[in-house]
Amino acid sequence: MHPGNGAEGPLTPGLVFEMLQAYQRTAALKAAIDLDVFRAVGEGPGDVASIARHCSASARGIRILCDFLTICGVLIKEDGYYRHSPTSAAFLDPRSSSSLASIAQFLGNPAQREPYDHLAEIVRTGRSVMPGDGNVEPENPIWVQFAETMAPMMAPMVGPLGAVVLEGHSGPMRVLDIAAGHGLFGIEIAKQNPQARVTGLDWAPVLRVALENARKAGVEDRYDMLPGSAFEVNFGGPYDAVLLTNFLHHFDEPTCVGLLKKIHKALRRGGRVATLEFVPNEDRISPQMPAAFSMTMLTTTPAGDAYTLRELTAMYNEAGFGGLTAHHIPMSPHTVVMGHS
Amino acid sequence: MHPGNGAEGPLTPGLVFEMLQAYQRTAALKAAIDLDVFRAVGEGPGDVASIARHCSASARGIRILCDFLTICGVLIKEDGYYRHSPTSAAFLDPRSSSSLASIAQFLGNPAQREPYDHLAEIVRTGRSVMPGDGNVEPENPIWVQFAETMAPMMAPMVGPLGAVVLEGHSGPMRVLDIAAGHGLFGIEIAKQNPQARVTGLDWAPVLRVALENARKAGVEDRYDMLPGSAFEVNFGGPYDAVLLTNFLHHFDEPTCVGLLKKIHKALRRGGRVATLEFVPNEDRISPQMPAAFSMTMLTTTPAGDAYTLRELTAMYNEAGFGGLTAHHIPMSPHTVVMGHS
Repeated sequence: MHPGNGAEGPLTPGLVFEMLQAYQRTAALKAAIDLDVFRAVGEGPGDVASIARHCSASARGIRILCDFLTICGVLIKEDGYYRHSPTSAAFLDPRSSSSLASIAQFLGNPAQREPYDHLAEIVRTGRSVMPGDGNVEPENPIWVQFAETMAPMMAPMVGPLGAVVLEGHSGPMRVLDIAAGHGLFGIEIAKQNPQARVTGLDWAPVLRVALENARKAGVEDRYDMLPGSAFEVNFGGPYDAVLLTNFLHHFDEPTCVGLLKKIHKALRRGGRVATLEFVPNEDRISPQMPAAFSMTMLTTTPAGDAYTLRELTAMYNEAGFGGLTAHHIPMSPHTVVMGHS
Repeated sequence: MHPGNGAEGPLTPGLVFEMLQAYQRTAALKAAIDLDVFRAVGEGPGDVASIARHCSASARGIRILCDFLTICGVLIKEDGYYRHSPTSAAFLDPRSSSSLASIAQFLGNPAQREPYDHLAEIVRTGRSVMPGDGNVEPENPIWVQFAETMAPMMAPMVGPLGAVVLEGHSGPMRVLDIAAGHGLFGIEIAKQNPQARVTGLDWAPVLRVALENARKAGVEDRYDMLPGSAFEVNFGGPYDAVLLTNFLHHFDEPTCVGLLKKIHKALRRGGRVATLEFVPNEDRISPQMPAAFSMTMLTTTPAGDAYTLRELTAMYNEAGFGGLTAHHIPMSPHTVVMGHS
């Protein structure tokens, strides 16, 4: 994105054209992933003919697509040959261990994108035009896809979050992972502390993904499942820590406070809650990614938002938490906000 | 867009997220234009409540939309109040004489955007999935909308193109404007040279738009209409100059050469043809806008392209033209290429 707030170059209509055609960038990346272009480029030699052969595609189409990807910065072209940019080598070649290609399935899911065809109407009414409560409709199958595909995006956050939550704590502990999704955050706690026992809470079909990940990580014997809605199931407990990752932003403040109170009751005295959130500055226009995330909440939820630290602090305090600390996760748009009971 | 060809900052997945969500930028700008946000911001005072009132929209929706537009660089936010950025003041406020808001109707037309939902298939087959010949299907009504809405985008090109074509020529002359569209290019010749007589060629419903513009410019008594296909109608003539603006890119090279030969025959000896084109460098990845335009031709035509100067020169020469000159139009993605018969 552009720097925003007036930090522009010379006055040309370029930015207007760029925005009106920005959707082409999304389509180009999605098509390239679907056609396996980034594997073809990685394997070389990188001429149009061999990429087209690998992708079972036309030379005209591949040449224009790869030129476009080069213009976007996710390929490099030299003497007519395409090769990886640092970004595409690390994050788009499916052979890379840090490949993010799978997240295109969730972020590019037509159900997530369709609301943008009705954005004016959404802005008028102030809430998603999705059926029911949109992405927070009970048992919405989108969260199975989220759990299955978005793990690579969360992977860099897992270690830092685990360290913040454990705070060096090494004895026996019980951890509740609310909206566990892929389960990676709770699993990381179990990996970092062999005496930790983790309960994953999410819709039952989602928890199957988490359990499979727990199995892969070798911690399934310390991984329990609590299927259902965070607002309805009995949490059990008491817990030493509750993880609340990428969850509060889906709801309005009273709903968040209600949930935080329920969490507070399920915590052992001195226990802590850790939210992982997109936390924009109080100006709500910086940093770019956390601030822009409000748009996703506008289009997919009835009343969610990217909350500022002041708003989160107010909610935490109202629910009985104190000693709040915020930990930005480097190279990510995420912040861990810790509160103590 | 990003600078491309490896000129990146530190290695983060930010660019991948940005591309996967770039479509949100298009939707936000379109929604803001549809809701009349830029007029509301221009009229002030710029707080969420008054913008929401002007736009008959929710406060939540307007706040999130305006924050997003600020992040994109087309508004400025200070102390909770939104005001115009230089870009939005000049090009998005409908009260501005250089407003480009109408071009969102053409560039945002669902018929133009829909092919991008099938981009992988288009790359496979190498041609538009639009019905028939896509945008170059005879009598495609898209060109009426183009003529009606895209004039503001072309306005800055009109004067420079007129000057290049006239080359100081002030006597009687006849000019054929092929694919006249809004007609502004031919009309400009008539304005700069009171002895010039212009014939606009386009589909009949499109020519109505051109004639109306000729009337507004006070040159309708020197504006003739030649309705039909450039490939089929008899050009008449002979002409002193032929304008071929934003046309060749829709077709493959043999088709372009065929048309250029037909033009050559319709020109007086010593006459000239002037194409206005997106002309990328030979690397086809720079400058950004002309190079990226190939993608639009891939998705909307069977075989069009943004041709390089070498390719255009070869076509011109094959059709019998010589003395080629290229004139980049400053602050625009366009180049005028002149050839002499």
